[in-house]
Amino acid sequence: MIDTDVSVALPPETLPARDLSANDFTQSGVVALEWIARGLSDPRRHPVRPSVVPGELSELLPRSAPLLGESMDAILEDFERLVVPRVTQWNHPNFHAYFAISSSGPGILGELLTAALDVNAMLWQSCPAATELEQVTAGWLLEWLGLPRDWFGMIVDSASIGVFQALVAARATASESSGEADGVPDPRFTVYVSEHTHSSVEKAAIAAGIARRHIRRLPVDGHYRFDAGALERAIEQDLARGLRPLFVAATVGTTSTTAIDPVPAIADLSERHGLWLHVDGAYGANYAVHPDGSAFLAGVERADSFVVNPHKLLLVPLDCSLLYTRHPERLRRAFALEAEYLKTGVSGVVDFMDYGLALGRRFRALKLWFVMRYFGRQGIVAHLDKSLRLTRWFGERAAEDPRFEIVAPIAMGLVCLRLSEAAGGDAATRRLLESIHATRRFALSHTVLGGRFVLRVAISNHRTELDDVSALWEALSAAAGVEAGASNASGD
Amino acid sequence: MIDTDVSVALPPETLPARDLSANDFTQSGVVALEWIARGLSDPRRHPVRPSVVPGELSELLPRSAPLLGESMDAILEDFERLVVPRVTQWNHPNFHAYFAISSSGPGILGELLTAALDVNAMLWQSCPAATELEQVTAGWLLEWLGLPRDWFGMIVDSASIGVFQALVAARATASESSGEADGVPDPRFTVYVSEHTHSSVEKAAIAAGIARRHIRRLPVDGHYRFDAGALERAIEQDLARGLRPLFVAATVGTTSTTAIDPVPAIADLSERHGLWLHVDGAYGANYAVHPDGSAFLAGVERADSFVVNPHKLLLVPLDCSLLYTRHPERLRRAFALEAEYLKTGVSGVVDFMDYGLALGRRFRALKLWFVMRYFGRQGIVAHLDKSLRLTRWFGERAAEDPRFEIVAPIAMGLVCLRLSEAAGGDAATRRLLESIHATRRFALSHTVLGGRFVLRVAISNHRTELDDVSALWEALSAAAGVEAGASNASGD
Repeated sequence: MIDTDVSVALPPETLPARDLSANDFTQSGVVALEWIARGLSDPRRHPVRPSVVPGELSELLPRSAPLLGESMDAILEDFERLVVPRVTQWNHPNFHAYFAISSSGPGILGELLTAALDVNAMLWQSCPAATELEQVTAGWLLEWLGLPRDWFGMIVDSASIGVFQALVAARATASESSGEADGVPDPRFTVYVSEHTHSSVEKAAIAAGIARRHIRRLPVDGHYRFDAGALERAIEQDLARGLRPLFVAATVGTTSTTAIDPVPAIADLSERHGLWLHVDGAYGANYAVHPDGSAFLAGVERADSFVVNPHKLLLVPLDCSLLYTRHPERLRRAFALEAEYLKTGVSGVVDFMDYGLALGRRFRALKLWFVMRYFGRQGIVAHLDKSLRLTRWFGERAAEDPRFEIVAPIAMGLVCLRLSEAAGGDAATRRLLESIHATRRFALSHTVLGGRFVLRVAISNHRTELDDVSALWEALSAAAGVEAGASNASGD
Repeated sequence: MIDTDVSVALPPETLPARDLSANDFTQSGVVALEWIARGLSDPRRHPVRPSVVPGELSELLPRSAPLLGESMDAILEDFERLVVPRVTQWNHPNFHAYFAISSSGPGILGELLTAALDVNAMLWQSCPAATELEQVTAGWLLEWLGLPRDWFGMIVDSASIGVFQALVAARATASESSGEADGVPDPRFTVYVSEHTHSSVEKAAIAAGIARRHIRRLPVDGHYRFDAGALERAIEQDLARGLRPLFVAATVGTTSTTAIDPVPAIADLSERHGLWLHVDGAYGANYAVHPDGSAFLAGVERADSFVVNPHKLLLVPLDCSLLYTRHPERLRRAFALEAEYLKTGVSGVVDFMDYGLALGRRFRALKLWFVMRYFGRQGIVAHLDKSLRLTRWFGERAAEDPRFEIVAPIAMGLVCLRLSEAAGGDAATRRLLESIHATRRFALSHTVLGGRFVLRVAISNHRTELDDVSALWEALSAAAGVEAGASNASGD
């Protein structure tokens, strides 16, 4: 026996339990619940965009954490007084930036209970219910999406991590198949994305050690969809140059315009040349739960991996991203390492830590289970239906107004529009965005399409109503009038 | 203008708002709060280890999600009836497996509000308060740990992701410095860990494309600490062979035994040979908030990157892992990609998405802020103090009992012990673990040290009291008696 360093002979003193008592917890919890409930019943009470300059909150907070504990009342008061006014209100019905997401009551309560259970879903044994509920809800969602029920699914925090894991599995599989067990990426590996593929795929490729010059950003067609012909030519050129085409990402609902890439054609090419096909449906695949989106996932059943984010459109709070694959054994070979302290001796179960990068895994399936059950498929369809209808309504207004151009097809919950050249073009569109944001009533975002500055109006928040979208249209229309006046005055 | 596909002329119907009403949300929320509060006041009411066979929960749940929504009452009832009995109770005072973590009331309420706000802290502009609170709390924690206040800190979900990001930054920096801007890992890169470094480092190296045969698992000393002499020899051998030593991970509180690697000696070697030094303090660094742990982080100020998980010992619910670095610009160069739709035009701010792999980022700083304020430094010290005292008390009992061997120094909240060879050795120790687990009263885990099977007793749950630890000791002692009887009977 070695020296044990157990010389301290004092009996342990009973220190006061400083955590909130059950009563105080419930009391503070009710304050928090009521604050949230006010947001559910009056979701427009805070400006959607805060009026804040960089560093403002940091300067209001003390430089050091307190030595002595403070009361929960004081903390909740500061939350409301200091934090909330500096929060961008993603849950606001007039939040139309990026992709408009919504957290729902059932999802919030799921997250509350997850935090209380505080389990780590790394192994089946470390929480059987967390592992099995993850498997069950992953299967349920496949059915809603019309995808094969036998796919392996796991919940990760973000689509970025999902595509990274898929890419590492693709890389490891290709290396193994050519007898390179050593794990160093072949410098000849090539990865294919379109100009409109989400930047997380390129980031994943860089992190996985794919040569930057072999990440091909290929052109899109007139509707901003991956040009399958360009992909075919790129693959053939790379093969002719002795390179090794590895991985292609197709997107169902691109970030800039919600374009749907031609997955069947891309799947043909992937199969012919042995590429791993990843489909990024982080945002757009959710619409496949709606009848109007039933064709959105055509060909996705042929993908090697697929991502959809219930935290984007299925009313589940951040973070809940589903990574699916037809090849769980490939994911496992890329990520499983056996540490003695994690061996459980339980066989015939899935230990999710073996299929990804992160060991620590929250019980994220609980909130997904709550939301799928509370809303049911019909409730989710109703939510998506409203998003599609309001988006089309807004698109029609813009299409009818000669000052505006709609710059991309409206397929999902997004309208891409700008002021026409006659109405001032890029410069006027930029000013339009600034003036709308200056009101703090709406949050929009922008992109650049074909060199032109474009407004993105994402309409998919659960609480957005026709009045909200109508008010946005009026504000844009009025601001466009100001711009048109300015253009005319300058003789443009 | 292109074809706009906005032919649907129907006005949007006002669909019923199917989310929970404010009243129903509050009512269901109170049910959830009271369930949690019962756990706070009676944390022993569920068996710590569930009695469950693989597939049991899956079989109890329907194969498909419901078409029509269900009531929140029914869902919460099923949570308690179906899920809870199959949960491993990590928050139980008799949970001594892996590392014993605790979620606290303030942390749970922070997570509740984070889910309600549902912001994405990817950019400063996408939620100024989330970004700045992350910066502020990261700075507060550095002060508690006695580390340089000017380090850059960010919150990620797990230490696994943190070390991966550090390794990719190290790889990119080394490649740039030798003029290889292409991003393919040099096959000559080598990474150094000890036999006791957490498996996530090796997993990160594999994912980052480091050659598996160049990941050196080096020996430890008699106290399971990284052998700095072995590290020096390995680096020198690799240099002599023309390899490129890149990265070394030192640990403050290893997973198997809570050993503290000789960080100053490893820092000397790192500086001499230009390696990136990462310090994994995921578990152990938290004890540096306590006066007894003030020396634990000696030398860490020289690290290039450092991880500590407040979700392990600082009463913050999963997930909250702090990644710190002295070189934020290196992290940023490795991970920043500019997508048009994410350009904000705001300068002088930190956009955390540019420093890591994940784009989607929850507002995790809120719960950390709640916990640091509610408990204060003194409250956290009291919590850590209890962990250290109870651990030492338990260690003394084991040290006094000749049937047991303590197999590693007790530095933090963990006792590694086994039955001596005379008392039955490995086989008897395995049976001891099985018999303790069969009672479902305690959760322990195991490891293998020097080829011997060892029990790990982690004592750091906030709600663990002397009576709990005393009961565990009695149970172990009684079971050891049975084992000794068996050994004697078999003439061993």
